[in-house]
Amino acid sequence: KNIAVLKGDGIGPEVTDQALKALKAIEEVYGHEFTYTEALIGAIAIDVTGNPFPEETFKTCQASDAILFGAIGHPKYDNDPNAPVRPEQGLLAMRKSLGLFANIRPINTYKILANSSPLRADLVDGVDFVVFRELTGGIYFGQKGRSEDRNIAFDNCSYSKEEITRISKLAFEAAQKRNKRVTLVDKANVLATSRLWREVVKEFAKNYPDVTLDFMFVDNAAMKIIQNPKFFDVVLTENMFGDILTDEASVITGSLGMLPSASVGSKTALYEPIHGSYPEAAGKNIANPNGAILSAAMLLETSFGLSEEASLIRKAVEECLNQGIVTSDIQKDSKFTTTQIGDKVAE
Amino acid sequence: KNIAVLKGDGIGPEVTDQALKALKAIEEVYGHEFTYTEALIGAIAIDVTGNPFPEETFKTCQASDAILFGAIGHPKYDNDPNAPVRPEQGLLAMRKSLGLFANIRPINTYKILANSSPLRADLVDGVDFVVFRELTGGIYFGQKGRSEDRNIAFDNCSYSKEEITRISKLAFEAAQKRNKRVTLVDKANVLATSRLWREVVKEFAKNYPDVTLDFMFVDNAAMKIIQNPKFFDVVLTENMFGDILTDEASVITGSLGMLPSASVGSKTALYEPIHGSYPEAAGKNIANPNGAILSAAMLLETSFGLSEEASLIRKAVEECLNQGIVTSDIQKDSKFTTTQIGDKVAE
Ligand SMILES: CC(C)[C@H](C(=O)O)[C@@H](O)C(=O)O
Ligand SMILES: CC(C)[C@H](C(=O)O)[C@@H](O)C(=O)O
Repeated sequence: KNIAVLKGDGIGPEVTDQALKALKAIEEVYGHEFTYTEALIGAIAIDVTGNPFPEETFKTCQASDAILFGAIGHPKYDNDPNAPVRPEQGLLAMRKSLGLFANIRPINTYKILANSSPLRADLVDGVDFVVFRELTGGIYFGQKGRSEDRNIAFDNCSYSKEEITRISKLAFEAAQKRNKRVTLVDKANVLATSRLWREVVKEFAKNYPDVTLDFMFVDNAAMKIIQNPKFFDVVLTENMFGDILTDEASVITGSLGMLPSASVGSKTALYEPIHGSYPEAAGKNIANPNGAILSAAMLLETSFGLSEEASLIRKAVEECLNQGIVTSDIQKDSKFTTTQIGDKVAE
Repeated sequence: KNIAVLKGDGIGPEVTDQALKALKAIEEVYGHEFTYTEALIGAIAIDVTGNPFPEETFKTCQASDAILFGAIGHPKYDNDPNAPVRPEQGLLAMRKSLGLFANIRPINTYKILANSSPLRADLVDGVDFVVFRELTGGIYFGQKGRSEDRNIAFDNCSYSKEEITRISKLAFEAAQKRNKRVTLVDKANVLATSRLWREVVKEFAKNYPDVTLDFMFVDNAAMKIIQNPKFFDVVLTENMFGDILTDEASVITGSLGMLPSASVGSKTALYEPIHGSYPEAAGKNIANPNGAILSAAMLLETSFGLSEEASLIRKAVEECLNQGIVTSDIQKDSKFTTTQIGDKVAE
């Protein structure tokens, strides 16, 4: 099995290194052998090649069975949407060219972290849902531009039945292994694309008689995530709504540093912690590596079908957490470093 | 001064009646004279005329100085985006035809309600910001439809410089009377329309050297509203992002029943509580009328320039709140009815 390793910017390299330790420990315990190939991405790739997602990196990913990803983004490119090259363009180009059409974001809380949530502890204790966000369609990739006199700007949002069906399949399959409920989040009272989503998903759901499908408008979902996050099991939604709702959902857990994600395509899939490049912490050995380590667990389970191995990593992470072996984002006065936690989990 | 009164569906009529009591009390105390003209809207208008926003109602609104609005929406039209006529179409038609381009949503908390918030009390105590949501442009009103084979659906989002400038003016003027900070929320790392918003607002801000402008991506804003809502003063954003963020922001206050809103155009302006038609409570005399009453206060201040009168209403509402004269949404075992609160505030 080939794993492409894209450490990227900011704290990306240091947290990815801890995830690699966990994967190597798994290789040892179970006698697997994985091959790792590093490649450049993001701001660092711009610095070296002028391109945030170089051809070389594309080829490495293309040839991989799975991609372990750190983070991209650098302050020198921040808040400058008119910069000629931006790291995010690399991200979007990567998603599109590798066909990573489904972003999967599990949202769950840990009892021991209940008090770090901005929400009241009773609301978040036991939250456990997963968002399937469509990642290569919608307004992100539609035609966009300006009128000739530059007075008007436009972005087109479009979806095809095929785009909706392929991610629905993943969401319904996940629901079957969970609590058997899918909530489609859309704005069908306003958008034609949302009405297509409803039509297609309603029809598609007939193949899964054991799964209950319900519908929710995106504005209601934004409220529900705060008021009653335990309501959700599997959330299915389009690209832009998914961008907003997954970020909203992650903060209610109180532990951005703990959350993994997957971006799945038909050929390969990419795994990354959701926390981003966090440049203020880069190089300080203080970043929480658990999001990256749990991304490695998702990789084993989702791309390689190694559920037992994935569970073992999750258990190791939880055990460290329960023993207070945590970084300072979790417990203010904690002195444990990124590498120490990586070592402990691997051990 | 002519006030069009559109009570609408569900609890709309009963809460609007309480707002009218407050307005009449103000007329008496200050010697003003307002004229009230009722008109049909929403599901009830569909039932009577077949049209959720009848021509007659349009004319009444057109001729008004301000519109006092209850709520629209009825379960018999719910979750059926394919129904031939839907109450929301009335809402959108009304916004567009009356040119109500700026939706203004104050988000503030009351000390006495700190424990009703889903957020930790320390995060919400003292929250006080206002969202300016563009209301007649963007993806809501762009071209939408299906490909001939019905395989693809699309929605176009577009904005012109003029649309951005006119709402910016309102937002910056509001900021001057508040804490002098405007946060433009967009997705300029992905959308051409967002890049136009940044360009136009940045330029426009030069007219207000006393106001600080900053930028935030919509996914970050969705997190910030939960993590640190006190950060915001004036939020300025486009239609769809505003739809999601205003609803998210309102639930953190813990008191949807207390929140007013304005939808302002160049000719007239509409004022409504944000809570919607809440059909389960309709006719039971249990709905919280304060959102409607505070909407009447916004009407006096924003459309008629009667700030003192508006303050008086706000003070009366707050006094009732502090004396425990509240509906059961605020305090579970409270026995006060909608009409009793309306009487008390007016008194
Ligand atoms: C960086 C940005 C383009 C990206 C997105 O909006 O998809 C990010 O917010 C994400 O969710 O991965
Ligand atoms: C009913 C719906 C069309 C409407 C909107 O999305 O604008 C509502 O959610 C609102 O915010 O007033």
